[in-house]
Amino acid sequence: MKIGIIGTGNIGGALARLWMAHGHEVVLGVRDEQKVEAVRGAFPGASVVLTEDATEGVEVVTLALPWPAVEPVLARMGPLAGKVLIDTNNPLKADLSGLKELGGRSAAEVIQQLHPEARVVKAFNTVGAAYLGHARVGDADAGGFYCGDDDGAKAVVAELVGQTGLVPVDCGPLRNARYLEAMAMLWINMAFGHRRGERFAFALLSDAASRANN
Amino acid sequence: MKIGIIGTGNIGGALARLWMAHGHEVVLGVRDEQKVEAVRGAFPGASVVLTEDATEGVEVVTLALPWPAVEPVLARMGPLAGKVLIDTNNPLKADLSGLKELGGRSAAEVIQQLHPEARVVKAFNTVGAAYLGHARVGDADAGGFYCGDDDGAKAVVAELVGQTGLVPVDCGPLRNARYLEAMAMLWINMAFGHRRGERFAFALLSDAASRANN
Repeated sequence: MKIGIIGTGNIGGALARLWMAHGHEVVLGVRDEQKVEAVRGAFPGASVVLTEDATEGVEVVTLALPWPAVEPVLARMGPLAGKVLIDTNNPLKADLSGLKELGGRSAAEVIQQLHPEARVVKAFNTVGAAYLGHARVGDADAGGFYCGDDDGAKAVVAELVGQTGLVPVDCGPLRNARYLEAMAMLWINMAFGHRRGERFAFALLSDAASRANN
Repeated sequence: MKIGIIGTGNIGGALARLWMAHGHEVVLGVRDEQKVEAVRGAFPGASVVLTEDATEGVEVVTLALPWPAVEPVLARMGPLAGKVLIDTNNPLKADLSGLKELGGRSAAEVIQQLHPEARVVKAFNTVGAAYLGHARVGDADAGGFYCGDDDGAKAVVAELVGQTGLVPVDCGPLRNARYLEAMAMLWINMAFGHRRGERFAFALLSDAASRANN
Protein backbone atom coordinates (compact mmCIF):
# COMPACT_ATOMS: atom_id res chain seq x y z
CA MET A 1 0.00 0.00 0.00
CA LYS A 2 1.14 3.56 -0.59
CA ILE A 3 0.75 5.66 2.56
CA GLY A 4 1.28 9.37 3.03
CA ILE A 5 2.33 10.60 6.46
CA ILE A 6 2.24 14.27 7.36
CA GLY A 7 4.44 14.87 10.37
CA THR A 8 7.64 13.05 11.25
CA GLY A 9 7.59 13.44 15.04
CA ASN A 10 7.36 10.60 17.56
CA ILE A 11 4.15 9.12 16.20
CA GLY A 12 4.54 9.87 12.48
CA GLY A 13 8.17 8.76 12.47
CA ALA A 14 7.46 5.49 14.26
CA LEU A 15 4.55 4.70 11.95
CA ALA A 16 6.70 5.43 8.88
CA ARG A 17 9.41 2.98 9.94
CA LEU A 18 6.99 0.25 11.01
CA TRP A 19 4.90 0.45 7.86
CA MET A 20 7.97 0.43 5.62
CA ALA A 21 9.17 -2.66 7.50
CA HIS A 22 5.85 -4.26 6.54
CA GLY A 23 6.48 -3.53 2.87
CA HIS A 24 4.38 -0.41 2.43
CA GLU A 25 5.53 2.49 0.30
CA VAL A 26 5.71 5.53 2.55
CA VAL A 27 5.57 9.15 1.38
CA LEU A 28 6.50 11.72 4.00
CA GLY A 29 5.16 15.23 3.60
CA VAL A 30 7.28 18.10 4.93
CA ARG A 31 6.59 21.81 5.21
CA ASP A 32 9.34 23.28 3.04
CA GLU A 33 12.16 22.33 0.68
CA GLN A 34 14.79 22.97 3.33
CA LYS A 35 13.52 20.05 5.40
CA VAL A 36 13.49 17.51 2.59
CA GLU A 37 17.13 16.44 2.79
CA ALA A 38 17.22 16.02 6.57
CA VAL A 39 14.05 13.96 6.59
CA ARG A 40 15.29 11.86 3.66
CA GLY A 41 18.40 11.09 5.70
CA ALA A 42 16.38 10.11 8.75
CA PHE A 43 13.98 7.84 6.86
CA PRO A 44 15.88 5.78 4.29
CA GLY A 45 13.47 4.13 1.88
CA ALA A 46 10.74 6.73 2.25
CA SER A 47 9.87 9.31 -0.37
CA VAL A 48 10.03 12.82 1.02
CA VAL A 49 8.01 15.54 -0.69
CA LEU A 50 6.26 18.77 0.16
CA THR A 51 3.03 18.27 2.10
CA GLU A 52 0.92 19.47 -0.83
CA ASP A 53 2.30 16.59 -2.95
CA ALA A 54 2.15 13.87 -0.27
CA THR A 55 -1.34 12.67 -1.09
CA GLU A 56 -0.69 11.96 -4.75
CA GLY A 57 -1.39 8.33 -5.55
CA VAL A 58 -1.61 7.29 -1.90
CA GLU A 59 -4.51 5.26 -0.52
CA VAL A 60 -4.00 6.33 3.09
CA VAL A 61 -3.01 9.71 4.50
CA THR A 62 -1.94 9.91 8.14
CA LEU A 63 -2.06 13.19 10.01
CA ALA A 64 0.55 13.12 12.77
CA LEU A 65 0.76 16.80 13.60
CA PRO A 66 0.04 18.94 16.63
CA TRP A 67 -3.59 20.08 16.51
CA PRO A 68 -2.90 23.76 15.67
CA ALA A 69 -1.11 22.63 12.50
CA VAL A 70 -3.92 20.40 11.24
CA GLU A 71 -6.27 22.93 9.66
CA PRO A 72 -3.61 24.91 7.78
CA VAL A 73 -2.00 21.70 6.54
CA LEU A 74 -5.31 20.23 5.41
CA ALA A 75 -6.04 23.47 3.56
CA ARG A 76 -3.02 23.07 1.34
CA MET A 77 -3.08 19.31 0.83
CA GLY A 78 -4.03 17.70 -2.48
CA PRO A 79 -7.38 15.98 -3.11
CA LEU A 80 -8.52 13.58 -0.40
CA ALA A 81 -11.60 12.16 -2.12
CA GLY A 82 -12.02 8.50 -1.26
CA LYS A 83 -8.75 8.32 0.63
CA VAL A 84 -8.47 6.88 4.12
CA LEU A 85 -7.48 9.77 6.40
CA ILE A 86 -6.03 8.63 9.72
CA ASP A 87 -6.31 11.27 12.43
CA THR A 88 -3.90 10.73 15.32
CA ASN A 89 -4.51 14.10 16.98
CA ASN A 90 -5.49 15.21 20.40
CA PRO A 91 -6.78 18.79 20.45
CA LEU A 92 -4.86 19.84 23.53
CA LYS A 93 -5.00 23.23 25.14
CA ALA A 94 -1.63 24.95 24.91
CA ASP A 95 -0.93 24.40 28.63
CA LEU A 96 -1.96 20.70 28.39
CA SER A 97 -4.61 21.34 31.06
CA GLY A 98 -7.36 19.76 28.99
CA LEU A 99 -8.94 19.38 25.58
CA LYS A 100 -10.03 22.32 23.49
CA GLU A 101 -13.75 22.95 23.34
CA LEU A 102 -14.81 22.02 19.80
CA GLY A 103 -18.56 22.40 20.22
CA GLY A 104 -18.86 18.96 21.78
CA ARG A 105 -17.11 17.37 18.79
CA SER A 106 -13.84 15.51 18.60
CA ALA A 107 -10.93 16.67 16.45
CA ALA A 108 -11.69 13.72 14.18
CA GLU A 109 -15.26 14.89 13.61
CA VAL A 110 -14.05 18.42 12.92
CA ILE A 111 -11.67 17.05 10.28
CA GLN A 112 -14.42 14.88 8.76
CA GLN A 113 -16.71 17.92 8.52
CA LEU A 114 -13.96 19.95 6.85
CA HIS A 115 -13.30 17.10 4.40
CA PRO A 116 -16.48 15.09 3.90
CA GLU A 117 -14.89 13.55 0.79
CA ALA A 118 -12.26 11.76 2.93
CA ARG A 119 -12.83 8.56 4.92
CA VAL A 120 -11.64 9.65 8.36
CA VAL A 121 -10.55 7.08 10.94
CA LYS A 122 -9.31 8.02 14.40
CA ALA A 123 -6.34 5.94 15.52
CA PHE A 124 -2.99 6.04 17.35
CA ASN A 125 -4.06 8.90 19.65
CA THR A 126 -4.28 6.98 22.93
CA VAL A 127 -0.89 5.31 23.05
CA GLY A 128 2.60 6.57 23.79
CA ALA A 129 4.91 6.43 20.77
CA ALA A 130 7.29 4.19 22.73
CA TYR A 131 4.81 1.31 22.42
CA LEU A 132 4.54 1.47 18.63
CA GLY A 133 6.41 -1.61 17.53
CA HIS A 134 6.88 -2.64 21.18
CA ALA A 135 3.30 -3.26 22.26
CA ARG A 136 3.92 -5.86 24.95
CA VAL A 137 3.41 -4.19 28.33
CA GLY A 138 3.68 -6.42 31.35
CA ASP A 139 1.33 -9.34 30.73
CA ALA A 140 -0.64 -8.08 27.75
CA ASP A 141 -0.46 -5.97 24.61
CA ALA A 142 -1.38 -2.31 24.43
CA GLY A 143 -4.61 -1.51 22.65
CA GLY A 144 -4.78 0.17 19.26
CA PHE A 145 -8.13 1.90 19.64
CA TYR A 146 -9.70 3.22 16.44
CA CYS A 147 -13.08 4.40 15.26
CA GLY A 148 -14.72 5.67 12.09
CA ASP A 149 -17.86 5.66 10.00
CA ASP A 150 -16.54 3.86 6.89
CA ASP A 151 -16.22 0.12 7.39
CA GLY A 152 -13.83 -0.33 4.48
CA ALA A 153 -11.54 2.40 5.77
CA LYS A 154 -11.67 0.90 9.26
CA ALA A 155 -10.62 -2.49 7.90
CA VAL A 156 -7.58 -0.89 6.25
CA VAL A 157 -6.69 0.90 9.49
CA ALA A 158 -7.19 -2.22 11.61
CA GLU A 159 -4.53 -3.94 9.51
CA LEU A 160 -2.16 -0.98 9.80
CA VAL A 161 -2.75 -0.87 13.56
CA GLY A 162 -1.94 -4.55 13.84
CA GLN A 163 1.31 -3.99 11.96
CA THR A 164 2.46 -1.71 14.78
CA GLY A 165 1.98 -4.56 17.26
CA LEU A 166 -0.98 -2.93 18.98
CA VAL A 167 -4.14 -5.00 19.36
CA PRO A 168 -6.70 -3.43 16.99
CA VAL A 169 -9.83 -2.44 18.94
CA ASP A 170 -12.85 -1.27 16.95
CA CYS A 171 -14.41 1.51 19.00
CA GLY A 172 -17.43 2.14 16.79
CA PRO A 173 -18.38 5.26 14.83
CA LEU A 174 -16.26 8.37 14.36
CA ARG A 175 -18.41 10.14 16.95
CA ASN A 176 -16.70 7.98 19.58
CA ALA A 177 -13.42 9.75 18.82
CA ARG A 178 -14.53 12.21 21.52
CA TYR A 179 -14.13 9.39 24.05
CA LEU A 180 -10.79 8.28 22.62
CA GLU A 181 -9.55 11.87 22.85
CA ALA A 182 -10.72 11.95 26.48
CA MET A 183 -8.79 8.74 27.19
CA ALA A 184 -5.72 10.30 25.62
CA MET A 185 -6.14 13.39 27.77
CA LEU A 186 -6.30 11.16 30.84
CA TRP A 187 -3.09 9.44 29.72
CA ILE A 188 -1.37 12.79 29.19
CA ASN A 189 -2.52 14.10 32.57
CA MET A 190 -1.37 10.96 34.36
CA ALA A 191 1.95 10.85 32.51
CA PHE A 192 2.96 14.48 32.75
CA GLY A 193 0.58 16.24 35.16
CA HIS A 194 1.11 13.62 37.82
CA ARG A 195 4.57 12.50 36.87
CA ARG A 196 3.74 8.88 36.42
CA GLY A 197 5.97 8.85 33.38
CA GLU A 198 5.16 7.46 29.98
CA ARG A 199 5.56 3.73 30.66
CA PHE A 200 1.91 2.74 30.68
CA ALA A 201 -0.76 2.10 28.11
CA PHE A 202 -4.44 1.38 27.90
CA ALA A 203 -5.61 -2.01 26.75
CA LEU A 204 -8.96 -3.54 26.10
CA LEU A 205 -9.15 -6.99 27.59
CA SER A 206 -11.75 -9.36 26.27
CA ASP A 207 -12.84 -12.82 27.26
CA ALA A 208 -15.70 -13.02 24.79
CA ALA A 209 -15.65 -16.38 23.06
CA SER A 210 -15.54 -14.71 19.67
CA ARG A 211 -14.76 -11.28 18.25
CA ALA A 212 -11.85 -10.71 20.62
CA ASN A 213 -10.92 -7.86 18.35
CA ASN A 214 -13.15 -5.97 15.96
CA MET B 1 -14.58 -0.73 58.06
CA LYS B 2 -18.23 0.24 58.05
CA ILE B 3 -19.44 1.04 54.54
CA GLY B 4 -22.78 2.41 53.43
CA ILE B 5 -24.00 1.53 49.96
CA ILE B 6 -26.93 3.32 48.37
CA GLY B 7 -28.31 1.21 45.54
CA THR B 8 -28.40 -2.57 45.37
CA GLY B 9 -28.29 -3.05 41.60
CA ASN B 10 -25.51 -4.80 39.66
CA ILE B 11 -22.70 -2.62 40.94
CA GLY B 12 -23.94 -1.85 44.47
CA GLY B 13 -24.95 -5.45 45.06
CA ALA B 14 -21.65 -6.88 43.86
CA LEU B 15 -19.66 -4.40 45.97
CA ALA B 16 -21.76 -5.26 49.05
CA ARG B 17 -21.07 -8.98 48.74
CA LEU B 18 -17.36 -8.56 47.99
CA TRP B 19 -16.74 -6.11 50.80
CA MET B 20 -18.62 -8.27 53.32
CA ALA B 21 -16.48 -11.21 52.19
CA HIS B 22 -13.45 -9.06 53.11
CA GLY B 23 -14.80 -8.52 56.62
CA HIS B 24 -16.32 -5.08 56.20
CA GLU B 25 -19.60 -4.16 57.84
CA VAL B 26 -22.00 -3.16 55.09
CA VAL B 27 -25.07 -0.96 55.53
CA LEU B 28 -27.45 -0.91 52.57
CA GLY B 29 -29.71 2.09 52.15
CA VAL B 30 -33.11 1.52 50.50
CA ARG B 31 -35.82 3.94 49.47
CA ASP B 32 -38.77 2.80 51.59
CA GLU B 33 -39.74 0.41 54.38
CA GLN B 34 -41.41 -1.95 51.94
CA LYS B 35 -38.05 -2.78 50.34
CA VAL B 36 -36.22 -3.53 53.58
CA GLU B 37 -37.26 -7.15 53.97
CA ALA B 38 -36.55 -8.17 50.38
CA VAL B 39 -33.10 -6.58 50.42
CA ARG B 40 -32.33 -8.15 53.79
CA GLY B 41 -33.14 -11.55 52.29
CA ALA B 42 -30.91 -10.93 49.29
CA PHE B 43 -27.92 -9.71 51.33
CA PRO B 44 -27.49 -11.89 54.42
CA GLY B 45 -25.07 -10.26 56.83
CA ALA B 46 -25.75 -6.70 55.69
CA SER B 47 -27.72 -4.16 57.66
CA VAL B 48 -30.59 -2.74 55.64
CA VAL B 49 -31.96 0.67 56.57
CA LEU B 50 -33.64 3.63 54.94
CA THR B 51 -31.27 5.71 52.82
CA GLU B 52 -31.46 8.64 55.24
CA ASP B 53 -30.03 6.41 57.98
CA ALA B 54 -27.38 4.64 55.87
CA THR B 55 -24.58 7.09 56.53
CA GLU B 56 -24.74 6.88 60.32
CA GLY B 57 -21.41 5.76 61.72
CA VAL B 58 -20.02 4.72 58.34
CA GLU B 59 -16.62 5.83 57.07
CA VAL B 60 -17.40 5.27 53.40
CA VAL B 61 -20.61 5.92 51.48
CA THR B 62 -20.96 4.43 48.01
CA LEU B 63 -23.45 5.87 45.54
CA ALA B 64 -24.48 3.11 43.14
CA LEU B 65 -27.59 4.66 41.65
CA PRO B 66 -28.66 5.80 38.20
CA TRP B 67 -27.68 9.42 37.73
CA PRO B 68 -31.21 10.90 37.90
CA ALA B 69 -31.58 9.42 41.41
CA VAL B 70 -28.35 10.88 42.76
CA GLU B 71 -29.37 14.44 43.56
CA PRO B 72 -32.66 13.59 45.31
CA VAL B 73 -30.97 10.83 47.30
CA LEU B 74 -28.07 13.06 48.33
CA ALA B 75 -30.59 15.68 49.44
CA ARG B 76 -32.13 13.38 52.00
CA MET B 77 -29.00 11.61 53.23
CA GLY B 78 -27.49 12.19 56.66
CA PRO B 79 -24.33 14.23 57.26
CA LEU B 80 -21.41 13.44 54.94
CA ALA B 81 -18.76 15.61 56.58
CA GLY B 82 -15.37 13.93 56.39
CA LYS B 83 -16.75 10.74 54.92
CA VAL B 84 -15.34 9.11 51.82
CA LEU B 85 -18.05 9.33 49.15
CA ILE B 86 -17.53 6.90 46.27
CA ASP B 87 -19.28 7.98 43.10
CA THR B 88 -19.83 5.12 40.64
CA ASN B 89 -22.14 7.05 38.32
CA ASN B 90 -22.17 7.78 34.67
CA PRO B 91 -24.46 10.70 33.79
CA LEU B 92 -26.05 9.04 30.78
CA LYS B 93 -28.64 10.59 28.54
CA ALA B 94 -31.92 8.70 28.81
CA ASP B 95 -31.45 7.13 25.36
CA LEU B 96 -27.82 6.12 26.18
CA SER B 97 -26.63 8.17 23.19
CA GLY B 98 -24.04 10.05 25.21
CA LEU B 99 -23.25 11.82 28.45
CA LYS B 100 -25.36 14.64 29.81
CA GLU B 101 -23.92 18.12 29.46
CA LEU B 102 -22.93 19.20 32.97
CA GLY B 103 -21.20 22.45 32.09
CA GLY B 104 -17.99 20.62 31.20
CA ARG B 105 -17.91 18.94 34.61
CA SER B 106 -18.13 15.28 35.49
CA ALA B 107 -20.88 13.84 37.66
CA ALA B 108 -18.26 13.39 40.37
CA GLU B 109 -17.38 17.07 40.34
CA VAL B 110 -21.06 18.03 40.46
CA ILE B 111 -21.48 15.83 43.54
CA GLN B 112 -18.35 17.30 45.15
CA GLN B 113 -19.68 20.82 44.56
CA LEU B 114 -23.05 19.90 46.09
CA HIS B 115 -21.28 18.36 49.11
CA PRO B 116 -17.93 20.07 49.64
CA GLU B 117 -17.84 18.53 53.13
CA ALA B 118 -17.52 15.01 51.67
CA ARG B 119 -14.31 13.46 50.27
CA VAL B 120 -15.50 12.38 46.83
CA VAL B 121 -13.64 9.66 44.91
CA LYS B 122 -14.74 8.44 41.49
CA ALA B 123 -14.48 4.68 41.11
CA PHE B 124 -16.16 1.58 39.63
CA ASN B 125 -17.73 3.49 36.75
CA THR B 126 -15.65 2.07 33.88
CA VAL B 127 -16.06 -1.65 34.45
CA GLY B 128 -18.91 -4.07 33.86
CA ALA B 129 -20.35 -5.50 37.07
CA ALA B 130 -19.53 -9.01 35.84
CA TYR B 131 -15.83 -8.35 36.43
CA LEU B 132 -16.24 -7.32 40.06
CA GLY B 133 -14.77 -10.27 41.93
CA HIS B 134 -13.75 -11.86 38.59
CA ALA B 135 -11.22 -9.40 37.29
CA ARG B 136 -9.08 -11.77 35.24
CA VAL B 137 -9.82 -11.14 31.58
CA GLY B 138 -7.76 -13.09 29.10
CA ASP B 139 -4.12 -12.48 30.02
CA ALA B 140 -4.47 -9.62 32.47
CA ASP B 141 -6.68 -8.10 35.15
CA ALA B 142 -9.26 -5.41 34.50
CA GLY B 143 -8.40 -1.96 35.77
CA GLY B 144 -10.08 -0.31 38.72
CA PHE B 145 -9.68 3.32 37.68
CA TYR B 146 -10.28 5.91 40.38
CA CYS B 147 -9.58 9.59 40.96
CA GLY B 148 -10.11 12.20 43.63
CA ASP B 149 -8.63 15.23 45.35
CA ASP B 150 -8.18 13.79 48.87
CA ASP B 151 -5.17 11.50 49.13
CA GLY B 152 -6.40 9.81 52.31
CA ALA B 153 -9.77 9.07 50.76
CA LYS B 154 -8.07 7.73 47.63
CA ALA B 155 -5.93 5.37 49.72
CA VAL B 156 -9.08 3.96 51.33
CA VAL B 157 -10.72 3.53 47.92
CA ALA B 158 -7.59 1.94 46.40
CA GLU B 159 -7.81 -0.77 49.05
CA LEU B 160 -11.53 -1.29 48.44
CA VAL B 161 -10.90 -1.45 44.69
CA GLY B 162 -8.23 -4.09 45.22
CA GLN B 163 -10.66 -6.16 47.29
CA THR B 164 -12.87 -6.48 44.21
CA GLY B 165 -9.96 -8.02 42.29
CA LEU B 166 -9.55 -5.02 39.99
CA VAL B 167 -6.08 -3.50 39.69
CA PRO B 168 -6.26 -0.11 41.43
CA VAL B 169 -5.22 2.65 39.02
CA ASP B 170 -4.78 6.16 40.42
CA CYS B 171 -6.05 8.50 37.71
CA GLY B 172 -5.20 11.78 39.43
CA PRO B 173 -7.51 14.53 40.65
CA LEU B 174 -11.30 14.45 40.73
CA ARG B 175 -11.36 16.65 37.66
CA ASN B 176 -10.18 13.62 35.66
CA ALA B 177 -13.50 11.93 36.41
CA ARG B 178 -14.67 13.60 33.20
CA TYR B 179 -12.26 11.34 31.30
CA LEU B 180 -13.28 8.25 33.27
CA GLU B 181 -16.93 9.01 32.48
CA ALA B 182 -15.98 9.35 28.81
CA MET B 183 -14.24 5.94 28.94
CA ALA B 184 -17.37 4.47 30.49
CA MET B 185 -19.51 6.00 27.75
CA LEU B 186 -17.22 4.39 25.17
CA TRP B 187 -17.63 1.04 26.93
CA ILE B 188 -21.41 1.42 26.98
CA ASN B 189 -21.53 2.41 23.32
CA MET B 190 -19.33 -0.50 22.28
CA ALA B 191 -21.21 -2.99 24.48
CA PHE B 192 -24.77 -2.03 23.65
CA GLY B 193 -24.72 0.40 20.72
CA HIS B 194 -22.51 -1.88 18.68
CA ARG B 195 -23.52 -5.17 20.18
CA ARG B 196 -20.10 -6.25 21.21
CA GLY B 197 -21.62 -7.55 24.43
CA GLU B 198 -20.36 -6.95 27.94
CA ARG B 199 -17.39 -9.31 28.02
CA PHE B 200 -14.60 -6.78 27.82
CA ALA B 201 -12.90 -4.37 30.15
CA PHE B 202 -10.34 -1.61 30.10
CA ALA B 203 -7.00 -2.14 31.75
CA LEU B 204 -3.98 0.00 32.31
CA LEU B 205 -0.83 -1.89 31.50
CA SER B 206 2.41 -0.68 32.97
CA ASP B 207 6.00 -1.72 32.57
CA ALA B 208 7.42 1.05 34.71
CA ALA B 209 10.03 -0.39 37.05
CA SER B 210 8.25 1.07 40.06
CA ARG B 211 4.84 2.51 40.85
CA ALA B 212 3.02 -0.08 38.74
CA ASN B 213 -0.10 1.10 40.49
CA ASN B 214 -0.75 4.39 42.24
